[in-house]
Amino acid sequence: MPHIDLGVDDRMFPGISGLTQYRPETAKPLMELAEVLLRGPSTLSPGERELIASYVSSRNECRFCASSHAAFAAAQLDQGMTMVEQVRCDLDSAPVSDKLRALLRIAGAAQQGGRQVTTELVDAARGAGASDLEIHDTVLIAAAFCMYNRYVDGLATFAPQDPAVYAARADRIVTFGYLALRPA
Amino acid sequence: MPHIDLGVDDRMFPGISGLTQYRPETAKPLMELAEVLLRGPSTLSPGERELIASYVSSRNECRFCASSHAAFAAAQLDQGMTMVEQVRCDLDSAPVSDKLRALLRIAGAAQQGGRQVTTELVDAARGAGASDLEIHDTVLIAAAFCMYNRYVDGLATFAPQDPAVYAARADRIVTFGYLALRPA
Repeated sequence: MPHIDLGVDDRMFPGISGLTQYRPETAKPLMELAEVLLRGPSTLSPGERELIASYVSSRNECRFCASSHAAFAAAQLDQGMTMVEQVRCDLDSAPVSDKLRALLRIAGAAQQGGRQVTTELVDAARGAGASDLEIHDTVLIAAAFCMYNRYVDGLATFAPQDPAVYAARADRIVTFGYLALRPA
Repeated sequence: MPHIDLGVDDRMFPGISGLTQYRPETAKPLMELAEVLLRGPSTLSPGERELIASYVSSRNECRFCASSHAAFAAAQLDQGMTMVEQVRCDLDSAPVSDKLRALLRIAGAAQQGGRQVTTELVDAARGAGASDLEIHDTVLIAAAFCMYNRYVDGLATFAPQDPAVYAARADRIVTFGYLALRPA
């Protein structure tokens, strides 16, 4: 049960969706940030960016966000959930590009703390072809999910067990995006 | 030196200010979130909310954010920087209200991780008079600063040593707010 009364059935509005209903004033910038970072114009594909979001959320052990963004990544990557699982279980051997692997290492460092992102990690990403903007966005995606994860779990929101729930949410996100999650 | 070329003199645009210049698309929701959380309508005063932000930033060892929000809190609290320092050094003995102390404990737990915010901590805050909305906003302020701190340090932005720099920034924030930090 959530720590506070969100005013909605938390089984119908799991995770962050109940929080956006509860506090529309904060939902607006939170969803706008997710939209620009994960779906706005970028040389990283939406699937690659969702993979970063799911990787960070897994490391923060946030079931709702990890399951959600794993489903959103899988829906937008050719290799689907297999790739998401390989990255989560063993980044070193996962069949991603050298650039994406280097960016995921930066994301993993930022998840631990800002100063864990070393010059060596950044140089390795740049050497693998990452642009400054890709490095910037990777750090901010990782940082943002350290926020979303803490927000969702810090208020003890409901996280469904059934993967079908997340797959259905993925259809809606891929079609309508994050701005549709803002309350009217 | 920042990990990426921000296109501005990082001594003139330290911390997050250079990042907002570099990426206006993300700066917009980031500054709107700070404005609603720290300065929007609330039963917590702006000084109290800045105190939560500075407390979390100190625990994340983010010099730029900790120094900035300490100055912003000090500028808006009767007890000024003395209070900020007392809270940072020993929350248990700091001369804050029981409600604010309980909220700061929730913020400290959220800084460690979402699931560290226990029912006991929430019940204690509620017992000391905190409302659901105050508990919500405290968790989200703490979560948000886990993002801002990682963003600022993850890209190795410049953090001035001179307290006068932060005091001058405080004057501008108190007068004009966070939306003024969005690039035109």
